[in-house]
Amino acid sequence: MRHKKIIYQPIGIIYSPHKEVKGVPIQPSSAKGIQGEIELFEEYQDGLKDLDGFSHIIILYDFHKSKGYSLQLTPFLDEKLRGVFATGAPKRPNQIGLSVLKLNRIKGNKLYVENVDMLDETPVLDIKPYASQFDAVEEEKIGWLSKNIKESDVKKSDERFK
Amino acid sequence: MRHKKIIYQPIGIIYSPHKEVKGVPIQPSSAKGIQGEIELFEEYQDGLKDLDGFSHIIILYDFHKSKGYSLQLTPFLDEKLRGVFATGAPKRPNQIGLSVLKLNRIKGNKLYVENVDMLDETPVLDIKPYASQFDAVEEEKIGWLSKNIKESDVKKSDERFK
Repeated sequence: MRHKKIIYQPIGIIYSPHKEVKGVPIQPSSAKGIQGEIELFEEYQDGLKDLDGFSHIIILYDFHKSKGYSLQLTPFLDEKLRGVFATGAPKRPNQIGLSVLKLNRIKGNKLYVENVDMLDETPVLDIKPYASQFDAVEEEKIGWLSKNIKESDVKKSDERFK
Repeated sequence: MRHKKIIYQPIGIIYSPHKEVKGVPIQPSSAKGIQGEIELFEEYQDGLKDLDGFSHIIILYDFHKSKGYSLQLTPFLDEKLRGVFATGAPKRPNQIGLSVLKLNRIKGNKLYVENVDMLDETPVLDIKPYASQFDAVEEEKIGWLSKNIKESDVKKSDERFK
């Protein structure tokens, strides 16, 4: 199990206005209104049926520009070393990103999305419908984020995870 | 890009009381109070620093018992064929599962979690902190789920995605 490889293949690509790591919004909440397009490879297009009924979708993707990982690092929202699993930083053992995006429209194999915080040409791994009954909880505490979270609305990434 | 392989490795294993596909809760919301344990492989333990400050965590995992995929299928909460990306069904092109769990305690490399809806011995791909500012949105519509969502509190899976 420990050294078993799990192999996935991109199902599509996200096109976004963020061409470089520096300046990318660190979360969808700091990318309000930023539009992008997901091109799903045609062979998966039939899997989009009914998705247009949802206003928001969960995108799982590969942080394709991130190389290697650190178990402890200083996240964009902080000045202290934190455990990587207590952050959303790209330099993680399996570099999977997660963003909840607004879905404006689907046309054929193209999804027009908003609040895009991914780099241009990011490989998409999965698309899931967002429903707060399943995907939202009322958390009691948010650790180190609690004193820093307001900054995230405006904060952009620098080059530390290039 | 299209046929590029993306290779991950399990970072740990989730131990849960759900030993068989049949009867597994289909979402954490239908697994309230069900306890489990995530064993993170020791080499990643330093990455857990600060995570105990969070009451909820996002677990990404591999649906390891699911083989192959269908682009359209009938989800547990419905009787109609739906596009796989409009569902959370395991039989998806990249069989990645996502659950938001309650984190009760961390001891060494063990995470004691609640609302566990994964099968026993599920390989864990990633752990992220949950913060509603980033991970929750107020959705306007939830498509086909809107008429079925109440059932999910009690509904268990059958064998259709074995």
